[in-house]
Amino acid sequence: MTDPTPGKRTELSELGEFGLIRHLTENFTIEQPSTLKGIGDDAAVIDYGDNVILVTTDLLVEGVHFDLAYMPLRHLGYKCAAVNFSDIVAMNGKPRQLFVGLSVSNRFPVEALDEIYEGIRLACKRYHVDLAGGDTTSSVHGLFLSLTVTGEAAKEDVVYRSTAKENDLLCVSGDLGSAYMGLMLLEREKRVFEVDPGMQPDLNGYDYILERQLKPEPRTDILELLKTAGVKPTSMIDISDGLASEVLHICEDSKLGCRIFEDKIPLDAMTVTAAEEFNIQPVTAAMNGGEDYELLFTININDFDKVKNLEGISIIGHMTEPNAGVFLASNNGPLIQIEALGWNHMREQE
Amino acid sequence: MTDPTPGKRTELSELGEFGLIRHLTENFTIEQPSTLKGIGDDAAVIDYGDNVILVTTDLLVEGVHFDLAYMPLRHLGYKCAAVNFSDIVAMNGKPRQLFVGLSVSNRFPVEALDEIYEGIRLACKRYHVDLAGGDTTSSVHGLFLSLTVTGEAAKEDVVYRSTAKENDLLCVSGDLGSAYMGLMLLEREKRVFEVDPGMQPDLNGYDYILERQLKPEPRTDILELLKTAGVKPTSMIDISDGLASEVLHICEDSKLGCRIFEDKIPLDAMTVTAAEEFNIQPVTAAMNGGEDYELLFTININDFDKVKNLEGISIIGHMTEPNAGVFLASNNGPLIQIEALGWNHMREQE
Repeated sequence: MTDPTPGKRTELSELGEFGLIRHLTENFTIEQPSTLKGIGDDAAVIDYGDNVILVTTDLLVEGVHFDLAYMPLRHLGYKCAAVNFSDIVAMNGKPRQLFVGLSVSNRFPVEALDEIYEGIRLACKRYHVDLAGGDTTSSVHGLFLSLTVTGEAAKEDVVYRSTAKENDLLCVSGDLGSAYMGLMLLEREKRVFEVDPGMQPDLNGYDYILERQLKPEPRTDILELLKTAGVKPTSMIDISDGLASEVLHICEDSKLGCRIFEDKIPLDAMTVTAAEEFNIQPVTAAMNGGEDYELLFTININDFDKVKNLEGISIIGHMTEPNAGVFLASNNGPLIQIEALGWNHMREQE
Repeated sequence: MTDPTPGKRTELSELGEFGLIRHLTENFTIEQPSTLKGIGDDAAVIDYGDNVILVTTDLLVEGVHFDLAYMPLRHLGYKCAAVNFSDIVAMNGKPRQLFVGLSVSNRFPVEALDEIYEGIRLACKRYHVDLAGGDTTSSVHGLFLSLTVTGEAAKEDVVYRSTAKENDLLCVSGDLGSAYMGLMLLEREKRVFEVDPGMQPDLNGYDYILERQLKPEPRTDILELLKTAGVKPTSMIDISDGLASEVLHICEDSKLGCRIFEDKIPLDAMTVTAAEEFNIQPVTAAMNGGEDYELLFTININDFDKVKNLEGISIIGHMTEPNAGVFLASNNGPLIQIEALGWNHMREQE
């Protein structure tokens, strides 16, 4: 490889993912008046008159983002599409078009790609998204998927990460930590299988957390629910890297602190059972597990009455002034400062 | 890997790139009224009121699409961006926003990515495109780049591949085959270097064809020129895979035949010299070399007078009724049927 700057070598790991993106993009300027929001939210926001177009893109790498040993190809296709739709939903928009880049080595037959595309097709059909383009190329090693989704929203409907206000209530949809426990389970069964290929996987009774890992759904229904209730979130993000990481995004971008109450974090009974089995605190799975693709959002405190009884929405805390910091009030007393560990960190700790 | 359909294995090579895309996408239906054009042109066309948004996406793989042994990283970044801008230009649109997905293994230091992004930044600056998002992840092997570009056009300005008419004149911008000869030269010097790393590359006097390979430019200037002349192309495509492949796209999509005249194909003197050196017919480099990123377009025959004296545009043939086939009238007499060999095929023939 050509060495661009002999004598200087900064390892990628020194910067971390977000640090690297910041570093690489800091010299770019926005010139187009149509670019309402560039880097730094779930999706870009482009002004096209009365409506805006939302654009999000994602690159998924075999061995990094998915493991074909336990991720069926059809589920892989569905999940890749669904999590990108989720980025559009997190802007309070509707996903409309999908673009798929696929790079595979010769070890994959056409039938394998058919399975991936069948999963993508099912997700497109369910969420009324059109496959509108893409690129298919060969690779030297493994499978790469690049997805771009465009979405639509009325200009006044778009919800950013950066617009939470002090005293806003912090809400989350569904339950958290289940996708991570599903992953733990799949990885355990993979290890068992590697030791004894004759073993049958013991996945009975774990349907819910497995489905949460293998087939996440973008919460378009929550947007409908809020709209019907007459509530527009003041800020919103989807939970891909764990509650801790996402809440820090909202706090940093909105320049606020926040307080979350551990006993308010929604956990499914199966998540709790599985966490006990794996000797993990369920709240840790929720805070740092990721891949739940639930919505984390803030609402004005005046909307409390409209939201408090909505099924599938939990109020887990509130926004504070920035100097108050970002804390989790734990069940057993002390305030714990929230740090962004995220999914990668947890993986390294195993 | 999970084998989705035991007992059946179709190799990717059996379908070919276009066949594979057709196969994978044939079960998808378009539901959104905003999807004016999905798969099957240089870019998708999405209806957003008076204007449309154009979206194109590309996946580039180290060892398949580029070789870092002779492609400096800054040029790689510039070229990746430029060729995607070219797809928007080929729809008669203006590129506006860029989204970059980057996947790299640990062998790349941050400084290497800085070079890539500096190249991307230069291309963005030159063509007034905003970097508006992206995704950066680690890979197990090598470097992958996924680019998505959004562009803008007034609805009535968009030019498709499928709208050429019988008797339209076929035109091309710039000259052809030079990027391919630049590639030949770089590959020769790489082989020399591999045999004797002490050798200095002998690239003197080849600046033009090297630049054509390493730093292609989208022909936004040609769109301006045509607009000023009051000519709207009846169909258009950019030349990424070679004149033969692109002309077949226009013919197939417009359901027409065509006749190209070999002596009208624009060739730079340096392309001819280099082709002789490599024992290649210059017209072969033009027809099957690819990566010129010139515009191939058709115009109504009534616009002949407006176009005939425009600098940088050559009229190379005309569209015929479909049964007349797609032929090259060679200098030495016979009509040669044009087949899509394209870049990959030429590589296999080496």
